[in-house]
Amino acid sequence: MTRHRYLNFVLLNKPETAMGTVCCISKFATLSYVRSRPFSSFLPSHPFPSTTSTNFSLASSFSSSVTLSFTWNDAIGISESQTDTQDRSRYLQGFFNKVQLCNRGSEKQSEFLPFVVEDHIVGFIHNGFVEHLRGFGDVFVFPKEKFNGGPNGDFVSLHPMLKTADERTSAVGYVVQQLGEERIPGIRNELYPVTSSFGAPIFFSLERAAAPYFGIKAYGVHMNGYVEVDGQKHLWIGKRSDTKQTYPGMLDHLVAGGLPHGIDCQENVIKECEEEAGIPRSLSVKAIPVGAVSYMDIDGYRYKRDVLFCYDLKLPKDFIPNNEDGEVDSFKLIPVRQVAEVIRKTQFFKTNCSLVIIDFLFRHGYITPEYHGYLDLLRSLRIGDCS
Amino acid sequence: MTRHRYLNFVLLNKPETAMGTVCCISKFATLSYVRSRPFSSFLPSHPFPSTTSTNFSLASSFSSSVTLSFTWNDAIGISESQTDTQDRSRYLQGFFNKVQLCNRGSEKQSEFLPFVVEDHIVGFIHNGFVEHLRGFGDVFVFPKEKFNGGPNGDFVSLHPMLKTADERTSAVGYVVQQLGEERIPGIRNELYPVTSSFGAPIFFSLERAAAPYFGIKAYGVHMNGYVEVDGQKHLWIGKRSDTKQTYPGMLDHLVAGGLPHGIDCQENVIKECEEEAGIPRSLSVKAIPVGAVSYMDIDGYRYKRDVLFCYDLKLPKDFIPNNEDGEVDSFKLIPVRQVAEVIRKTQFFKTNCSLVIIDFLFRHGYITPEYHGYLDLLRSLRIGDCS
Repeated sequence: MTRHRYLNFVLLNKPETAMGTVCCISKFATLSYVRSRPFSSFLPSHPFPSTTSTNFSLASSFSSSVTLSFTWNDAIGISESQTDTQDRSRYLQGFFNKVQLCNRGSEKQSEFLPFVVEDHIVGFIHNGFVEHLRGFGDVFVFPKEKFNGGPNGDFVSLHPMLKTADERTSAVGYVVQQLGEERIPGIRNELYPVTSSFGAPIFFSLERAAAPYFGIKAYGVHMNGYVEVDGQKHLWIGKRSDTKQTYPGMLDHLVAGGLPHGIDCQENVIKECEEEAGIPRSLSVKAIPVGAVSYMDIDGYRYKRDVLFCYDLKLPKDFIPNNEDGEVDSFKLIPVRQVAEVIRKTQFFKTNCSLVIIDFLFRHGYITPEYHGYLDLLRSLRIGDCS
Repeated sequence: MTRHRYLNFVLLNKPETAMGTVCCISKFATLSYVRSRPFSSFLPSHPFPSTTSTNFSLASSFSSSVTLSFTWNDAIGISESQTDTQDRSRYLQGFFNKVQLCNRGSEKQSEFLPFVVEDHIVGFIHNGFVEHLRGFGDVFVFPKEKFNGGPNGDFVSLHPMLKTADERTSAVGYVVQQLGEERIPGIRNELYPVTSSFGAPIFFSLERAAAPYFGIKAYGVHMNGYVEVDGQKHLWIGKRSDTKQTYPGMLDHLVAGGLPHGIDCQENVIKECEEEAGIPRSLSVKAIPVGAVSYMDIDGYRYKRDVLFCYDLKLPKDFIPNNEDGEVDSFKLIPVRQVAEVIRKTQFFKTNCSLVIIDFLFRHGYITPEYHGYLDLLRSLRIGDCS
């Protein structure tokens, strides 16, 4: 994936402007077999007031975003700008917008075919991407060759000759290699497990960059590192290196990473703590798992179905993080309320970090039931298949 | 509701025995307009091992429960009994059982008709209970008198002459009074708001005891009060008075209460803190909201759709709770890990408290992703319509 693509995504050096309207929940809507709901069903069932202008936008389309970069000073300036937190009817709007940025395209689910292995749906493949796979008839079996037995009568599966995980990993890996950077940009040579749900049997392993093209679920760990100073919590925030392939220059958690095949969540947190922030094992073993968030995002042929395990680590006041793998430009310790303002008012954060920080805001009491849309925002943190 | 009924519910003085089997999730299942899923869809998509015996049962039927009472000594004894927390494949089973006890009868949803006010579904009424309402044709309008416009073609609504909230409150209140203790036991003379979702317009108010007979959503606040001693968290647990009308003698949160019409969550927490545990406002204002759990439970004509706002309050080590309304027999401070064992191994806790304590266990790192079924248990804490 090129840097240009990501620059087009989400960099903004000014607060969003002009508020959008919000759909009502239809109580009569039936839900699809995907076990996921359109984003609109998580929005408040009663619209935010739209008669007055606000500082925030629905920002449903990335392509219209301004693509300038920003500095720490820009972020700190916005975080310190005054906000009327007493306006309970509109305060959560900026958070809803960020959740929506992680959950685009639910209306396009019908363009995807289920990808089925051993009678389990493990992914979803776009009709257009299926055409790229048709040349590999010894690896994939396509709808026309099967009886109409799937939920919509159609699905893609693996060739029955591929019986073991190793055979499947090798065969699909060959296809990914053949399709190359043109069809599957950003190949990392890192394998993700293909499974129907976390902890279930692993059917095979797939190149990480290919995961969204096959719509397989990807798991990750995200850690909020915080410090308590005079009773006030502060979050350590990273700014990604400008040369990082994905989301260059954007704000990030202290520690986060994908969960590759063969390592458990805690060990992965400990490993990433060391690599990304120089946190020694003696501290990182104290990171506690606190739940999970999930989202589903359709972007062209890509169907991301991500589940992020969330961790909190309370750090000593004198700890200073130190990036050891060159992927982080710098870190800053920012009061939680100011981090919340950056999330609400900008798109400076890597999109999925917003979800994990909003989850932190809920668990630590920064978002309260008195704000309009509390339960809707809470539910929206687990869109898609959180399993 | 008689004491006998509640004794029949959940009192056990011994750990559960014999494990049940657990259904697989069907990825192909379509979901109903109720925005809720059968409990089985929240169970792990891959069954717990069933080839070996365990100490825990699925306990899907209350009626077969032993109905003896228990003492603090019984609870403490069980909490201290050894558990192999290293058995990651089965450790969560006891928690799943408790979630299931809050979410019975999803297969009976079809016996209920939607209760619609101003085009919003506000509740669900059992076909049998509808027959009790037929004598009140100036208050309710029934399916046969309306065109088939509902989700299943049928619904119950209020008479169009009842236009204001006050008129509706008064008219439905009259019906509740006429039906009396025989049809609606446990009348409390406490009004709950009738709404489609939290924070949405309130259509009228309804006697609390009648809420499940009309299937309206009920909101409450539950607070975990905890103390940190030498880095170990302990929870203050209450034991309900043996003379309390509901769930006598059972274990409970330090503070919990329904959310009546006209009071916000924080004020309700502060009020209940004072009444139930003698916690002064200077301490209770520090209670932080940390999220919400929900469940849906069908029991005969009763359809409970509850949403509980969860609070944490870290208390000083020297604080001793003191019940001021006679509803609590006594309190004990118990290490969190031991509370978890009581939840897993017994049915000593009032059923919905288990959900809120399991949520606490997630947020404070006592349940980790390494345990089989982590995400399924996490999702199961918000069954039904958490809005």
